[in-house]
Amino acid sequence: MRILILGGDGYLGWPTAMHFSRRGHEVHAVDNYLRRRAHAEAGTDSLTAILGSLPERARVWKDVAGLEIGVTEGDLREWDVVERVFRDFRPEAIVHYGEMPSAPYSMIDREHAVFTHDNNVTGTLNVLWAMNEFTPEAHLVKLGTMGEYGTPNIDIEEGFIQIEHKGRADVLPFPKLPGSFYHLTKVHDSHNIHFVCRIWGLRSTDLNQGVVYGIETDETRLDPRLATRFDYDEVFGTALNRFCLQAVIGHPLTAYGRGGQTRGYLNIVDTLQCVELSVMNPPAAGEYRVFNQFTEQFSIVELAEKVHEAGAHHGLNVQVDHVDNPRVELEEHYYHPVHTKLLDLGLRPHLLSETLIESMFDQISAHRDRVIADHIMPATRWRAGIRQPTSS
Amino acid sequence: MRILILGGDGYLGWPTAMHFSRRGHEVHAVDNYLRRRAHAEAGTDSLTAILGSLPERARVWKDVAGLEIGVTEGDLREWDVVERVFRDFRPEAIVHYGEMPSAPYSMIDREHAVFTHDNNVTGTLNVLWAMNEFTPEAHLVKLGTMGEYGTPNIDIEEGFIQIEHKGRADVLPFPKLPGSFYHLTKVHDSHNIHFVCRIWGLRSTDLNQGVVYGIETDETRLDPRLATRFDYDEVFGTALNRFCLQAVIGHPLTAYGRGGQTRGYLNIVDTLQCVELSVMNPPAAGEYRVFNQFTEQFSIVELAEKVHEAGAHHGLNVQVDHVDNPRVELEEHYYHPVHTKLLDLGLRPHLLSETLIESMFDQISAHRDRVIADHIMPATRWRAGIRQPTSS
Repeated sequence: MRILILGGDGYLGWPTAMHFSRRGHEVHAVDNYLRRRAHAEAGTDSLTAILGSLPERARVWKDVAGLEIGVTEGDLREWDVVERVFRDFRPEAIVHYGEMPSAPYSMIDREHAVFTHDNNVTGTLNVLWAMNEFTPEAHLVKLGTMGEYGTPNIDIEEGFIQIEHKGRADVLPFPKLPGSFYHLTKVHDSHNIHFVCRIWGLRSTDLNQGVVYGIETDETRLDPRLATRFDYDEVFGTALNRFCLQAVIGHPLTAYGRGGQTRGYLNIVDTLQCVELSVMNPPAAGEYRVFNQFTEQFSIVELAEKVHEAGAHHGLNVQVDHVDNPRVELEEHYYHPVHTKLLDLGLRPHLLSETLIESMFDQISAHRDRVIADHIMPATRWRAGIRQPTSS
Repeated sequence: MRILILGGDGYLGWPTAMHFSRRGHEVHAVDNYLRRRAHAEAGTDSLTAILGSLPERARVWKDVAGLEIGVTEGDLREWDVVERVFRDFRPEAIVHYGEMPSAPYSMIDREHAVFTHDNNVTGTLNVLWAMNEFTPEAHLVKLGTMGEYGTPNIDIEEGFIQIEHKGRADVLPFPKLPGSFYHLTKVHDSHNIHFVCRIWGLRSTDLNQGVVYGIETDETRLDPRLATRFDYDEVFGTALNRFCLQAVIGHPLTAYGRGGQTRGYLNIVDTLQCVELSVMNPPAAGEYRVFNQFTEQFSIVELAEKVHEAGAHHGLNVQVDHVDNPRVELEEHYYHPVHTKLLDLGLRPHLLSETLIESMFDQISAHRDRVIADHIMPATRWRAGIRQPTSS
């Protein structure tokens, strides 16, 4: 199958490209190095060292695996880039990770909020128009986020909910309560994609993914030069990855607020499994389906406790700090999202174990000399916008 | 009160500016003439003749009413424009009509879809950031559309719905099924505005307005030079206005498809009344409220029949043509939207009467020499995007 990976230079994009390539698919990866530039501007970096460019990564993949991954360096906001890729490669499936993925980044100031909005939603609109023009039978596998739903006081269904109201009933899109300008862009994408499936008969799977953790996949293990990136800074780092790094360097785990915030989590190898299950089992023409993509749920306090315990067995003295929450979010709440559709397709979860956490400690330790410790504490505040008028 | 009118050159914006000015408020109007340019590009125009520029309209208003309306000619996508207006004028209420308002326009091609998206959502994001920085206590009265809801099979509530699900309950945003890229931008705005009310404590009223009809308001009647625009072309014209014009010029009424499409409608004078009621009764800080703004509902067939009957009394021989529907929409459907919140605030509806339709015939007849008849038939098709690949 011809599979296009948008955001193919990223934490998940590069392992996904190698994963499909190794299974015999024809893979083409697109990226404009947005994440790398954002890191360079902030003075942060991936824990793991990443080879120079996407073409260089593809050359190493050729060396190691003997397989080709095609590459385009370009911006999805530019129509001529998107048009050329779709016209020339004619993908049968598109795996779309190609967005600015950070909630804190989107909350820094107006420029970052507007940029995140434009980058994510305009890029995806271009992809939809390109699909319609060049590959109307293709399947868009779009990465969304569980954060689109927020924390409602009812069970979260997979994209749609049967509502009974005043004696009538309908199945309608599940209401969204996104928690940042970044999360809002994912909600906007969901509405836009649902629309083109209804109007143009395109087909799409929207993967509302939980928080991903882990460093290694079967393909990254083949050669150190195939490593994927690993972020732990306040802008791009996520809870468990950051906690493991903090444990290794002797930094207290930064639990935001009371730590009752509960989210869905999954291992990076299960991300690849879920994306592959979605690609290999496409929806019908005109169908827009939503899968909640995570394998288990934890509160921040539970995660910190797991890292604390694994640390104790590993000889690490792990402290937990409840820092002032930079976000505006409920710190104690009901959380019960359904996540059975990927299991029904055959997902076999790799659940979080002490062994996995300890192996992350070892992998992080191997790169310990690269840690930049002064951008781990949260600096971006959701209420930063709140300030006195500059005059009057 | 200092009231900022965004889109102050438009069909509703200009009458709203005059309405508030005449009631003793300090009014400032912003527009970048987007609608005028779109008409010029398409070779269409308003039925009524509009004076040269917004400053000229304000000068005539000063002549006629002896009152000042401040004016800024500028684009809400440009931060320096938005910043200057908010910093200098410091509005207490913002009435936001300043968006590309046409569903067909947004469906013409990729460029028009992306432009509509960028224009509407980026402009509104700038307004939200400006409110937060300069006027955090101000009240945003944002024009949305009933078209955000689509036609679900349950009663449409005003913005939020109590959902009981698996033994629990919550009040959540009403699910949206928008019918065009334009309608999608309004859904995106709604989510963005709801978010900043939750996060920053801003206050907003989102007016999900039905289809507006009518030519005159108390202020436009003061002088012919104060006329507002009146669109009847396939891109900017709306059902009843277009039907009345077709009746006058002897063109068959163009009912799209079977004509069972049912929508909410209101008289332009009730738009002014609703906006004024919203402005004078602001929500609390942090509150995001939604009003469904229309006074009665009709199907296309019912509207056509009303125009037919009024035409018969008026000596017009009105034909009805069921033309191939350019849109993708249900032509027979359940439709029962709640619309009590504005009535509770004191709205006294001007319902559609034969007298009103006949007065529209007269007003249209007075401008009959300006009619451009060759852009009334629908040319923009929702499925226009569906075409064969350009190669292979």
